[in-house]
Parts: sequence; C-alpha cells; structure tokens
Amino acid sequence: MTSLNDLPIRDDLRGKTPYGAPQEHVRVQLNVNENTHPIPEGVATDIVTAVARAVLGVNRYPDREFTELRESLAAYLGHGLAPENIWAANGSNEVLQHVLQAFGGPGRSVLGFPPTYSMHSIIADGTGTRWVTAERDTDYRLSAATVASAIERERPDIVFLCSPNNPTGTPLGIDVIEAAYDATPGILLVDEAYAEFQDGPTALSLLADRPRLLVSRTMSKAFAFAGARVGYLAADPAAIDALRLVRLPYHLSALTQAAAVAALAHADEMLAMVDDIKAQRDRMIAALPALGYTPHESAANFVLFGGVADPHAVFESLFAEGILIRDVGIPNHLRVTAGTDAETTIFLDALARLGAAGDLGRMAP
Amino acid sequence: MTSLNDLPIRDDLRGKTPYGAPQEHVRVQLNVNENTHPIPEGVATDIVTAVARAVLGVNRYPDREFTELRESLAAYLGHGLAPENIWAANGSNEVLQHVLQAFGGPGRSVLGFPPTYSMHSIIADGTGTRWVTAERDTDYRLSAATVASAIERERPDIVFLCSPNNPTGTPLGIDVIEAAYDATPGILLVDEAYAEFQDGPTALSLLADRPRLLVSRTMSKAFAFAGARVGYLAADPAAIDALRLVRLPYHLSALTQAAAVAALAHADEMLAMVDDIKAQRDRMIAALPALGYTPHESAANFVLFGGVADPHAVFESLFAEGILIRDVGIPNHLRVTAGTDAETTIFLDALARLGAAGDLGRMAP
Repeated sequence: MTSLNDLPIRDDLRGKTPYGAPQEHVRVQLNVNENTHPIPEGVATDIVTAVARAVLGVNRYPDREFTELRESLAAYLGHGLAPENIWAANGSNEVLQHVLQAFGGPGRSVLGFPPTYSMHSIIADGTGTRWVTAERDTDYRLSAATVASAIERERPDIVFLCSPNNPTGTPLGIDVIEAAYDATPGILLVDEAYAEFQDGPTALSLLADRPRLLVSRTMSKAFAFAGARVGYLAADPAAIDALRLVRLPYHLSALTQAAAVAALAHADEMLAMVDDIKAQRDRMIAALPALGYTPHESAANFVLFGGVADPHAVFESLFAEGILIRDVGIPNHLRVTAGTDAETTIFLDALARLGAAGDLGRMAP
Repeated sequence: MTSLNDLPIRDDLRGKTPYGAPQEHVRVQLNVNENTHPIPEGVATDIVTAVARAVLGVNRYPDREFTELRESLAAYLGHGLAPENIWAANGSNEVLQHVLQAFGGPGRSVLGFPPTYSMHSIIADGTGTRWVTAERDTDYRLSAATVASAIERERPDIVFLCSPNNPTGTPLGIDVIEAAYDATPGILLVDEAYAEFQDGPTALSLLADRPRLLVSRTMSKAFAFAGARVGYLAADPAAIDALRLVRLPYHLSALTQAAAVAALAHADEMLAMVDDIKAQRDRMIAALPALGYTPHESAANFVLFGGVADPHAVFESLFAEGILIRDVGIPNHLRVTAGTDAETTIFLDALARLGAAGDLGRMAP
C-alpha cells in the first residue's frame, strides 16, 4: 500500500496531520462553539423555498458576484455599509485565505497574538505567509501599547486581531484596534466571528476612512448557520477588489447564496437566542468558581476555564457521559460552548459530580 | 477614494483583473459550457427534500469528511473505486487548488499544454507554483512522444493533462496518459471535466497501481449542476490524505453535500441529455464547414471553430441577437457550447445570416 510519505508532497507538509476537532455524535456537543439552538421552523421553511427556486437553475453557474447576498449582508451589518464593502466565501476560513493570498504570501508576514483562533496560523502556512507572534498581557488581555509595540518590533505586512478572542473569550477594546491601525502601514484584519455575543462597539464603526482595515464575520456562530458555510468581510471597496483577484471564480454556490439571503431576511429570529446564550455563558462563569475552577472573562459564546489538574481526564470523563467539550491545548484549561439552558445544566451537573467523585479535575488549592 | 494600487497588495497581483466570462442574461447562453438543459423536475424535488433535511441541522458544522458524498461519488464512478479514493470540493477549481497546495507551491512547477483550461495557469499563480508550458502537435493534438519529451525536458513536479481538452475539445489517447505517467516521477493530474461527453476509456481505468495519478471531474458539465459547485477527484487513498492536509476544515457545506448526494442517486436521469448534447455538437461540426468555418474535432460539449476573420465582430453580432458564445483568445477562432436542439438551431441560423449579411465572419477563401 502506498503511504503519504511515498508521494511527492511538499516538504513542509511531511509529518503533518489534518486539522480536526473530534466529530463525535453525543447528546451534548459543546466543543466547536456552534449555536446549539436549531433554527426556527418558519425560517427553515423560507430557506428551503429559496433553495428550491435556486435548484431550478442549478444547471447554470451561480452569480459570480453574489450581488444579492452582498446586499443582504450590507443591510444586516448597517454602519452605512454598501454591497461594494462586502465580501463573502465558504466560511470565514476561506475569507481569511483570500486576505492572505491578496496581501500576504511568500516573503510576507502576518502577526498574531496566541493563544488565538488556531486556523489563523494554519491558513498563514497554507498560503506561504510567515506567521509571527507576540505575547498577550495578563489574563490574555491586549492593550493598545502592547499591540502597537509588537507591530513596531515585528513590522508585519498583516496584523490579525481576534475580537473577542477565541479560545479565550477575551474582549478587545476599540482603542486597541485604532492603535493597531495607526501603528501599521499594512493590513489590519479584525476577526469578529463572535461579535454578536459582545457588548459595545465593533470594529465596523472604525471602517470609514480606514482603507487598510478589514473586519471578518461569520454566520456560523450567533447566526446558527455553521452547516451552510458562510463567512464574510467588510472593508473599503478597494480591498474587496483585491480579494476578487484571488478568489476562484464562482466560489459561492447558488444554493449557499439563496440559503444565506433567506436566512438574513430573518436576522431578528435567527439571532433571538443570542441573549439566552449570553445568559448561559454568564451562568457558567458564575458557577465554575464554586466548583473550584477559574473561568476567564468572555465576550463570546464560550468559556475558557483554568484550574483543571488533568484536562485530558476531565475531557474523557465528560465524554463518557455524552458531553463533548474542548481541550484547546492550554495547560490546565478546558473550553466549553454556551449551549441551551438544559445543556448547560447537564454540563455543570456532570462537572460537579466529577469533582465530588474524586477530584479528577480540580487542582489542589 | 482609495484605489486598489493604494493598498499593499502582493506585487504579482498589481495590474491584474479578475477572471471573468461575461455574466449577461440573454436568451441563448452558449459561452461557459454549461449543460443548458434544466434538471428533471422529479430530481429537483428529491434534491430539495434532501436539502430541507440538512437545513434542520444547519446550526451544526457539516461532516468534515463528507462521507456520504464520497460513497455516492465512488459508486457513480465505478472502476472499483471506494470512498477512500475520492475527494471533493467547491468546484473542480478548488480541487485543483488543493492538488497544487499539496504537491506544488513555491519552488515547484506544473507543466501544461496550452491552449488549455485557463484556470490551470491562474490556480498555479494563486498557489505560487511555476507554470511551465509545452507545445501541442498539429490541430491541438497531443501524442505520447510529445508529452513524454516535454516532461523529460521540463522536469515538472506536476503535469496537467486536460481530457478532452478545453477550449479545443481535443480528445486525449489513453496511451498518452500512460506515457506521461511513466515519464514523470511527479504527480500526473488528468482533468476530465468533460469526460462524460467522450467515447472510449477514461483515465479512471489507469488508477490501479498508479498512486501518482489523480483524475479530476466535475458535476458542472454533463451533470447539469454548475450552480451547486461540486468538483471531485479520484486517486490512491494516500493522495487523498495529502489533500486533507491543505483543505480548509468544513470546506463543503451541509447543503452542498445533501444536494449532491440526492443528485447522484438520480445519475441516469441527470445524464439523460448527454446523448442529445453530443448530437448537437456533432450537428454543429457537420454544419459549420458549409458556412465557411473550420470546426475542430471535439469529444466535449462544445466546438472550437476557426476561419473567423473577425472574432470580436462575430461575437458582438451574435450577442446583439441574444446569443452568447466565447472568444477564448485564439486568433480567428470562437467557441460555442452545444445546447439544446432549439439553441443550436438559433445559433446556426444566426451565423448563416451573418455570413450572408456581409461576410463579417468568414475568412476569404
């Protein structure tokens, strides 16, 4: 049998394994920060009707400019944005890949602040962009001074900021984004995948007169649309033109475009569960200390908590009970998605029993 | 206003314009080699039902391994292929991008034989793979000797063969593929986007014991599924593992997977119009000489014809009548897709009138 190493793959891929959160089907899946609430039935009906219309013309290529989708996304985002300000792709991963293909690539670098979204460095690798890193402040925070001095030190072509940050949940001040923009002559991308769960202003409010600022979003999280793969981005029309140079033609299917437009017409209903999810997040942050864990501040739909003596053992014990959370590789930490009220209860109860059963999880005081 | 050149885009992108066939809506669209027959109503209903089921779980990420789709594609292709032999992505463009990301990239090269599918060189550029070319034989044909000597001369990391070739329609002998494989220690990719329109064996019959041979296909042409964006590839499981290293996670949406699986369950009905399309292609090849043009042999769903004094003028005259064909940049040539019987009649009649109206198109004898 032929093995991967018998084939002439690129040297930098040798020995690597594909990205992969476990795809286990259990009763409580709180591992990949999905919105665990199914979409409302009436909205689903409208989506299916829109897709049915698209299927009738599926023998033809889709609108390469996804005009109607850009109109819907601009209207959803507000902030005076027009369709010319909008880009979209199959998930925000592909949006970020387009950004690095246009502005990064061989001989160029992108600066990130780990721990952060793990795909940032993977997409940098995949596009041949050098991934450089700088440290965060205490408790994963980032100050304007820290970011500006890292930019001045590393002089990257692109800066990635994640707001709020994944996998830590840390909010990012709008002043930090302004300082980062002023410190770099390059591209500043703010990844706002979880923005709908945060309070206060977003980077969208800074777009006017900042042509090098790009703000990426996704319909996978608050919008309960992970399965449809729709990521998007807002920026100056010139930056959108740059992305048009590197995208593969017809990259967004007619079904994706139709489904997303229909879902965006029901934005209020699709986002109706956001407040409940935030409440569950805050409930976990309030409950975890009593169980002996140390949750971090979160402006997203998940909580990173420390104080875990043996993350692998806690992960496995919860998994044995049909509860899937995430070991994101930070020592003594685990990450859990804020799900429904019932899911949160199951998770917290299981964790409490686990502690009582033999202190698998909690660190010695 | 900011312009593209005010932004720090990659130097190799400066001055470029995005790929783009015109997206004009006219009564007869014969420019991008779609299957102009809409899909049968019963099949459309089954596709919508499958998508409706997928929408109910669209708040969750899709199956990253698109297992059911790989099973369906393996069953469709036959040739003893198993799901482990199958890869898929959002159009064959993305499949080819994955191949170049895994086996090409900076410091590596891919050999092609122009005129060929224009995206081959664009995807090479996009992945930083050096695009090297070699000449074809008379009338765009490729012999085993020509291909083998080009490979020995250029020593590329990857060889792209297009069978049948786009935009010329030229069939490729199975012996040429065998000779190319034997001549290279690298990857041989055979792009079979139009394979369903050709007679005789396909490169799939050569896959056994050739782990460096990759055969790409698409559902966009014969399968009447261009709007759904489903390209795929068959190869040794080790080669599939290599593609898994470079794909973005969850690259295929749950809706795409559901729609494609449902369509593949109706493969016979989806392909029912292939014989009619081939008949229209052969009808054009038979009719064009009497109008003063010189069609090339075609094993695809389109015809490239020469003898056009002024391709731009002919293109514009047909467009004015609501008929869209393609100027592929080959001097004195135009390309036309084989559509329905009615579309073919409208095209041939218009071309005949054009000749009679003032010899815009035909070259002097």
